[in-house]
Amino acid sequence: MSNVLAGDEKDKVATFGWAARDDSGILSPFHFTRRANGDNDITLDILFCGICHSDLHFLKNDYGMSIYPMVPGHEIVAKVTKVGSKVTKFCVGDIAGVGGTVGSCGSCSNCSEGFYVYCPKMILTYSARYHDGTITQGGYSDKLVVDQNFAVLIPKSMPLAGTAPLMCAGITVYSPLKYHGLTKPGLHLGVVGLGGLGHVAVKFAKAFGMHVTVISTSPSKKKEALERLGADAFLVSQDQQQLQDAMGTMDAIIDTVSANHSIQPLIGLLKTSGKLILVGGPASPLEVLAMPLLLGRKMIAGSAGGGREEIQEMMNFAAKHNITADVEVIPMEYVNTAFERLQKNDEKLSE
Amino acid sequence: MSNVLAGDEKDKVATFGWAARDDSGILSPFHFTRRANGDNDITLDILFCGICHSDLHFLKNDYGMSIYPMVPGHEIVAKVTKVGSKVTKFCVGDIAGVGGTVGSCGSCSNCSEGFYVYCPKMILTYSARYHDGTITQGGYSDKLVVDQNFAVLIPKSMPLAGTAPLMCAGITVYSPLKYHGLTKPGLHLGVVGLGGLGHVAVKFAKAFGMHVTVISTSPSKKKEALERLGADAFLVSQDQQQLQDAMGTMDAIIDTVSANHSIQPLIGLLKTSGKLILVGGPASPLEVLAMPLLLGRKMIAGSAGGGREEIQEMMNFAAKHNITADVEVIPMEYVNTAFERLQKNDEKLSE
Repeated sequence: MSNVLAGDEKDKVATFGWAARDDSGILSPFHFTRRANGDNDITLDILFCGICHSDLHFLKNDYGMSIYPMVPGHEIVAKVTKVGSKVTKFCVGDIAGVGGTVGSCGSCSNCSEGFYVYCPKMILTYSARYHDGTITQGGYSDKLVVDQNFAVLIPKSMPLAGTAPLMCAGITVYSPLKYHGLTKPGLHLGVVGLGGLGHVAVKFAKAFGMHVTVISTSPSKKKEALERLGADAFLVSQDQQQLQDAMGTMDAIIDTVSANHSIQPLIGLLKTSGKLILVGGPASPLEVLAMPLLLGRKMIAGSAGGGREEIQEMMNFAAKHNITADVEVIPMEYVNTAFERLQKNDEKLSE
Repeated sequence: MSNVLAGDEKDKVATFGWAARDDSGILSPFHFTRRANGDNDITLDILFCGICHSDLHFLKNDYGMSIYPMVPGHEIVAKVTKVGSKVTKFCVGDIAGVGGTVGSCGSCSNCSEGFYVYCPKMILTYSARYHDGTITQGGYSDKLVVDQNFAVLIPKSMPLAGTAPLMCAGITVYSPLKYHGLTKPGLHLGVVGLGGLGHVAVKFAKAFGMHVTVISTSPSKKKEALERLGADAFLVSQDQQQLQDAMGTMDAIIDTVSANHSIQPLIGLLKTSGKLILVGGPASPLEVLAMPLLLGRKMIAGSAGGGREEIQEMMNFAAKHNITADVEVIPMEYVNTAFERLQKNDEKLSE
């Protein structure tokens, strides 16, 4: 999957984006070049790019691995404007989606199954070093050059703005539902948190025919959960009586909350052999009692992203079932305000 | 599965056992009666009964649910001396095994799959209230009356003393290996702890053709692990270099340790999609970082016992592969000393 660079300096792709220069995270206009389109590459005109919570962490260097200047963005929907000589998956004019990964070793067991997201040498879409030594830059920009294997075809019917977040949030919830066999009609799924991940999880779970209970700290989200997203039930996670009544009723729970929170009550909500799936990733260690896991043959599993074929499958499934993320479309110039709002939301909410 | 009692008082089975009268846990001779053999019951002459670590906890009322006088023992091998009119699974003269459960509701989803061990109304072999209101008493006694559905047939070829612990330790490690697909030759399994559960886990895993690494705090167990049990490798869990060298190499780990210990290093030993299976059940909450679970699609699962058909299958598999637990056979009169030794071992070892 390593990329032989075609052409020379003059073939590099002049790109305009918005970059943070330091961990203030303030974005401002930034001119740079992307690599010339290689044999396996496609060049894209970016149409929409989602804002993911992890972008905020990268801007602020919360993970200690940020490289500046940094153009964030990894929920990308774009139009193909050029294809390399070995490109088979795309034609000029196609709509492509690019997510959080743009490269991997290509030879490990994870890569061989298309799960490059789990490759130890996985290359992030931005703030990472590419095979050619350049620093990757993300989707808050007008153009992108990417290896065809790290892009998926977006079905023509999809509304593009709401499709962009599926490249991250969509696959993040779809993949573990598939992996853990949670696609059977009638299974009871709890969805913890109703943010970017959670609301998409509800949509996929309902499309699979599952019985869905949204679990949230915010009673104010009840209407959105039940009326707008079509969840079957709503559970306020601070309400002991509601928790007690729902004990042992769920086949699985997908926990999308990245703020620190207790997962022990969630274990209690599971039936025998129930599965708690973490996709949010709180920073502080979780406290877990072993005995409830043993006595109920329960499990706690993590998941991040999905495989190459799985992302395409997810996108096709979403197209078939009219699933997109609920989005507010903003102009690029508004991005700093958008991040401020995201940050304030963090401070206000525990999920 | 409820039991219609046949006969009257005179048909009750006079039994002699050793019982604790209080939470000192000291056992002394005890005469009592068991219920008359019902239509679905078999009456047994007990031949061997294992000493399990949980017996010590029950004797001392560590779980707060002990009922005295208490005859412990739930790793029972016995000869069938009487069968009820509806008994189809056993004949007089057969050898039967009885484990930790002697009753359940019979109608819940767990019971319908034979997983009565996970039935919310599961009845323990001792220190529990049976359907007829009597208190169950365990295998440190000469006779037992049990519903045929809570006994398995012991193949004639098996050495009986070493077979008794399989009714608890054996199924406790066999069931999760089966459930999690860990029976494929060549998979790399870590076994944490080399006590009653761990040493049997090594034997089953080797019989499945797996590559087995024993993980222990005690370097002194290396010889036993490699030479006697046939493990492929030995890892001292306090040795940072050994841990580092083994990172990301194991498909799964079965953790048999019931003492409090850190499981975070074990997560690191797993490959992508690796499984950490807890069967020991430490009392203190485990501290678990979410991100390593997410980024490696790893899971932590618990397991306790196994299903009815599974116990029989385990026993047949053990017979075929000459698997028994390593035991020291003691006379009943030695039991208090044996528990003292177990307790001292607890104080000496962290596993």
